[in-house]
Amino acid sequence: MSLNTFGHLFRVTTWGESHGPAIGCTVDGCPPGVVLDEGAIQPWLDRRRPGQSKFTTQRQEPDQVRILSGVFEGVTTGTPIQLMIENTDQRSKDYGEIARQFRPGHADVTYHLKYGVRDHRGGGRSSARETASRVAAGGVARAVLAALVPGLKITGYMVQMGTKTIDRARFDSDEAERNPFWCPDPAMVGEWAAYLDGLRLSHNSVGAVVEVVATGVPPGLGAPLYGKLDSDLAAAMMSINAVKGVEIGEGMAAAALTGVENADEMEMGPDGLRYLSNHAGGILGGISTGQPVVCRFAVKPTSSILTPRRSVDTLGHAVEVVTKGRHDPCVGIRAVPVGEAMMACVLLDHILLDRGQTGGIRGTIG
Amino acid sequence: MSLNTFGHLFRVTTWGESHGPAIGCTVDGCPPGVVLDEGAIQPWLDRRRPGQSKFTTQRQEPDQVRILSGVFEGVTTGTPIQLMIENTDQRSKDYGEIARQFRPGHADVTYHLKYGVRDHRGGGRSSARETASRVAAGGVARAVLAALVPGLKITGYMVQMGTKTIDRARFDSDEAERNPFWCPDPAMVGEWAAYLDGLRLSHNSVGAVVEVVATGVPPGLGAPLYGKLDSDLAAAMMSINAVKGVEIGEGMAAAALTGVENADEMEMGPDGLRYLSNHAGGILGGISTGQPVVCRFAVKPTSSILTPRRSVDTLGHAVEVVTKGRHDPCVGIRAVPVGEAMMACVLLDHILLDRGQTGGIRGTIG
Amino acid sequence: MSLNTFGHLFRVTTWGESHGPAIGCTVDGCPPGVVLDEGAIQPWLDRRRPGQSKFTTQRQEPDQVRILSGVFEGVTTGTPIQLMIENTDQRSKDYGEIARQFRPGHADVTYHLKYGVRDHRGGGRSSARETASRVAAGGVARAVLAALVPGLKITGYMVQMGTKTIDRARFDSDEAERNPFWCPDPAMVGEWAAYLDGLRLSHNSVGAVVEVVATGVPPGLGAPLYGKLDSDLAAAMMSINAVKGVEIGEGMAAAALTGVENADEMEMGPDGLRYLSNHAGGILGGISTGQPVVCRFAVKPTSSILTPRRSVDTLGHAVEVVTKGRHDPCVGIRAVPVGEAMMACVLLDHILLDRGQTGGIRGTIG
Amino acid sequence: MSLNTFGHLFRVTTWGESHGPAIGCTVDGCPPGVVLDEGAIQPWLDRRRPGQSKFTTQRQEPDQVRILSGVFEGVTTGTPIQLMIENTDQRSKDYGEIARQFRPGHADVTYHLKYGVRDHRGGGRSSARETASRVAAGGVARAVLAALVPGLKITGYMVQMGTKTIDRARFDSDEAERNPFWCPDPAMVGEWAAYLDGLRLSHNSVGAVVEVVATGVPPGLGAPLYGKLDSDLAAAMMSINAVKGVEIGEGMAAAALTGVENADEMEMGPDGLRYLSNHAGGILGGISTGQPVVCRFAVKPTSSILTPRRSVDTLGHAVEVVTKGRHDPCVGIRAVPVGEAMMACVLLDHILLDRGQTGGIRGTIG
Repeated sequence: MSLNTFGHLFRVTTWGESHGPAIGCTVDGCPPGVVLDEGAIQPWLDRRRPGQSKFTTQRQEPDQVRILSGVFEGVTTGTPIQLMIENTDQRSKDYGEIARQFRPGHADVTYHLKYGVRDHRGGGRSSARETASRVAAGGVARAVLAALVPGLKITGYMVQMGTKTIDRARFDSDEAERNPFWCPDPAMVGEWAAYLDGLRLSHNSVGAVVEVVATGVPPGLGAPLYGKLDSDLAAAMMSINAVKGVEIGEGMAAAALTGVENADEMEMGPDGLRYLSNHAGGILGGISTGQPVVCRFAVKPTSSILTPRRSVDTLGHAVEVVTKGRHDPCVGIRAVPVGEAMMACVLLDHILLDRGQTGGIRGTIG
Repeated sequence: MSLNTFGHLFRVTTWGESHGPAIGCTVDGCPPGVVLDEGAIQPWLDRRRPGQSKFTTQRQEPDQVRILSGVFEGVTTGTPIQLMIENTDQRSKDYGEIARQFRPGHADVTYHLKYGVRDHRGGGRSSARETASRVAAGGVARAVLAALVPGLKITGYMVQMGTKTIDRARFDSDEAERNPFWCPDPAMVGEWAAYLDGLRLSHNSVGAVVEVVATGVPPGLGAPLYGKLDSDLAAAMMSINAVKGVEIGEGMAAAALTGVENADEMEMGPDGLRYLSNHAGGILGGISTGQPVVCRFAVKPTSSILTPRRSVDTLGHAVEVVTKGRHDPCVGIRAVPVGEAMMACVLLDHILLDRGQTGGIRGTIG
Repeated sequence: MSLNTFGHLFRVTTWGESHGPAIGCTVDGCPPGVVLDEGAIQPWLDRRRPGQSKFTTQRQEPDQVRILSGVFEGVTTGTPIQLMIENTDQRSKDYGEIARQFRPGHADVTYHLKYGVRDHRGGGRSSARETASRVAAGGVARAVLAALVPGLKITGYMVQMGTKTIDRARFDSDEAERNPFWCPDPAMVGEWAAYLDGLRLSHNSVGAVVEVVATGVPPGLGAPLYGKLDSDLAAAMMSINAVKGVEIGEGMAAAALTGVENADEMEMGPDGLRYLSNHAGGILGGISTGQPVVCRFAVKPTSSILTPRRSVDTLGHAVEVVTKGRHDPCVGIRAVPVGEAMMACVLLDHILLDRGQTGGIRGTIG
Repeated sequence: MSLNTFGHLFRVTTWGESHGPAIGCTVDGCPPGVVLDEGAIQPWLDRRRPGQSKFTTQRQEPDQVRILSGVFEGVTTGTPIQLMIENTDQRSKDYGEIARQFRPGHADVTYHLKYGVRDHRGGGRSSARETASRVAAGGVARAVLAALVPGLKITGYMVQMGTKTIDRARFDSDEAERNPFWCPDPAMVGEWAAYLDGLRLSHNSVGAVVEVVATGVPPGLGAPLYGKLDSDLAAAMMSINAVKGVEIGEGMAAAALTGVENADEMEMGPDGLRYLSNHAGGILGGISTGQPVVCRFAVKPTSSILTPRRSVDTLGHAVEVVTKGRHDPCVGIRAVPVGEAMMACVLLDHILLDRGQTGGIRGTIG
């Protein structure tokens, strides 16, 4: 990770501000010969697109992606793929006071302190709008993964909104695609809707936990000790706006387990090695085991709220900040497709890294 | 992060296996003119050293560090600093069966699958022994930090062992330096001792949560969007052996907060900007706020235990693995100095990165 | 350098093909607070622009650069600067046969062999058109350099066209700005014009040597041993299309010198240390001396010529390749602004790197 | 390239000073399962070892390499390989005056200016002694290349010493292995010996040109536009002490060629594509063609000579520098094995990079 680039071999550099003319990213190191066009990327952007329900920001952005380079006659050429998304619904005048005030819990103040200057319009570079670029890059990664590892599948959903956690006994991944919260617990959908409505109408917002699972991941991805698959996932997820915690497998709960409980026992099955549990979340020693890779991350509540909060302005005057404009009451909702995209990029990057170093040769058992 | 290197400008590359002749690291990009000798590094290694109580592995390693380059007449020269620690107490024969068996929950199997070959002696590269190199590098980082940012202080301690969590109302950072668990809750020390003794004698192990706090961190460290301070901390902590979750500030608990609760309100104090709370853990938008940087990570229980666990060997035969040898019943204890070292390295790296890009100029308030 | 990115802290990632909708680059790590707009970049692009004399390709491209991000209210914000240049005069049908044939001495064949697919239109990614992105990035670097090191000046010119070398006794840097060849030898301008006309009309092309000099470079830029200033300059210049050799100071001629001749003797002058000669080209041990940094590179003749050359097509059939279309008879001419841009980017990158590591502190003499 | 590390996937980090206890390097990213021991590396170090004839420094260093990690039971494990070479013949007192004086043409002054402190003993980090680490790393690269690309062969030799250039009509690669100059022209050996003796006895030194050729290089290595094979070779060779120019194929002479002359025509041979000439030096568009990769570099004369040269000391006093101690009258001689090692490392790195991105799939012709 290097300022605005992530990835080792499959490298994504994003650029753009919320209210500039456009945002986008350069995807470098993409394998050649992969079928790709805008139509393969757009559906992922549509999943993340704002304004699709009352539970997300009402900003209307078509989020139409254009491929400006790196694809020729429908296939990738191995050269950098430039993806651009124009900003169309900026309404910068909504943000006038933000130019001089610092929203509590927001990056306003740290950008100001670090750079001495900031594009305050809509949060500028710190806006969640940047995540559209990640989702576009993830669309490219998914197209490559589909070609290289056909059985690999990535699924994201929300497992907690505020204080309300799903019941995993009712887990239904199809359900997650049917409601505006990516909620896999059918019984929780209505509860979340009412809860979020209440928060929204009381000028508040709330956090969430997102889980992203990748199945069909080959063993052997990742490398000791600073190129670990889980290190890169942690960095990738923590780089998403508003994320404050990242877990692999049992995550923070691993602290409460004993070694006897935590051991993922192994046996030989008809298709080779199999594990009797997956506390590890598919990663041991930084390297994938072949089990599902399970990653969770917590998204803090949106800091842009209508409830007044005490703060200061650039002149050091005390102010009460009330953030008008169009904001997500639970930005964790739209983080689901973003987390999926980061998972896709990190996995593909490690597939390329691994075949670079090892040639894809695997140790055998039995 | 790139396989065995971490850091952007202050770059640490570690090498070495648990039972090879030595381990060590190269610290590249260190500022010149900083007073440094082995005496400045050794105390940090002594904090991490095994065999100091019955609660850590009984392996006896003096962990004497030697500086082989990059220091001349007691000051750093700006060229790479090579730090070497000889292994002296290997006893490789303790590990005979491990050569062919895979410990459940251990990196044995993933190294085998990825590389087809592994140095099984004492866990080889995946051994917690590697963390001594990190601590040595952290000692260099601390010496530089002391010169560049005299007020900066890094403190680590354990806040949870297994199911037993400290009571923060009794928090006493001095206490953490007095007991073998880095436990800052005087009332919990005895309880942890009895708990861990019980686990150890029943051939079991247990996880832990470690918290590392840095105070006196200047605002403005970190950068959007993939060079975020919290992204780099997440990667650094997740790269420590056995870590399964990383949190900044409220961490996973941020999900349950509302925007009203989570806002760290601001006002002008006699020394300039001050915050009324620190839910953010000192980082907003990936950039330090000037408040304490608070990072927590969960360490899973040691997978090397005497209780038999089901597994397979390299031939695919079912085996019951019983790991003899000398292991930490709660490896989280020794992770405390390691977490401190990673914090030191990441903060210094970002101080150098920041003054590279901005020249250290800060935006003003008031 | 990493596929399509160069630079350590001031990082430039270019993208785009000759006949795609646009080309451009992302400039990451730019210091904040620097005055910048399109007007500061455009003049550098205009220097490189094709179609300005009969001695360069007749392709008509306005090369209008747009800043899409990273600049707000006329100053850089420290976030990524996206620069885009639309392609307007593609005429792809000129290149029909090139889709299946490989021009001798051109990257056609290696792109095909490596990727199995290539955007053949106008050379695609291997076209000299990509260098417009470098020049745009160089414009940003120049704006930053002007702010950070006001006395620093970068000047490029041609010292050799084909077999005809300038006479340094007649060196006149103002002259270089007045003729279409960046020729600093007034007596050579007419000779080069006639020579190149002859080559052009005989369906041939020719190579050149370009020299780029930076004066006012502070001492202390660069670092042993793989971040040397000269290593990075060598990589940067060699990355320009068609470059086959790079020299610093005496360059290849250093081989013929003795140690007595080559020693740049030193004395104290009124302004401190001064050197009595500059065989080193301003770099010793990979670090700038404070003298002018002198870099030369050889550009091979354009491989796209009207004279038939033996080759094969993708089916392995023997063909005679005749390259129609609009090509530079001496592509070295347009490489002058490109070399200047690379010098600007590399120097700025090392200024940032140096102040990152050392804080800009310098050893003193006297 | 990043301060003391080079390579993308096969990454080498060197450390150590001329008169410290040891020098060495960490080789990271090495493929696993490759047969390797000290015996495979030592012969390459023996080629570079000083004190083998009167034409190189009389310092006596056995240059015994030790593998401290990354190899287990005779094969590489995929984890970092630490190579250490102890310094045994330092004689630091020879260098007393050098502590305060700056040798003209030497890195003494730039290290002092940049860092304010330097290890002056034997040149410290800027000593040619560092190249032993490169040769050791090159030995690892050669072992891997032998396993992955058995037909690949790397050969270095000197083509020019001072003003005396070999006659390529008499080229005999076996001869290069038989004389102390790696001179492939039998008729030139005696002439060089007399010439260098004369220079040495008159307290002088001289430059050289080294050529390194790799045959059996697969097509498709390298990548546009900043990860070009020739860019990386240029950086690698320019990073060798005292190198001032780097050429690929025709190199600087390409400037004098016409497009008709320079075109490497192609035809189909019995084994597929073949080229009728190799002006390109095996690289087009930054990507290998399958022809021999030809790289040359110029080494300046040793700056440490017995002839007095004017300079200053750290106090700014004028001094006449006379460098006693043991120095190479033509350091280019010992640069031959170093150039070979850099070629080996760069080629292997690009083989890994290429199979990472493309999976090693090649476009076909015919």
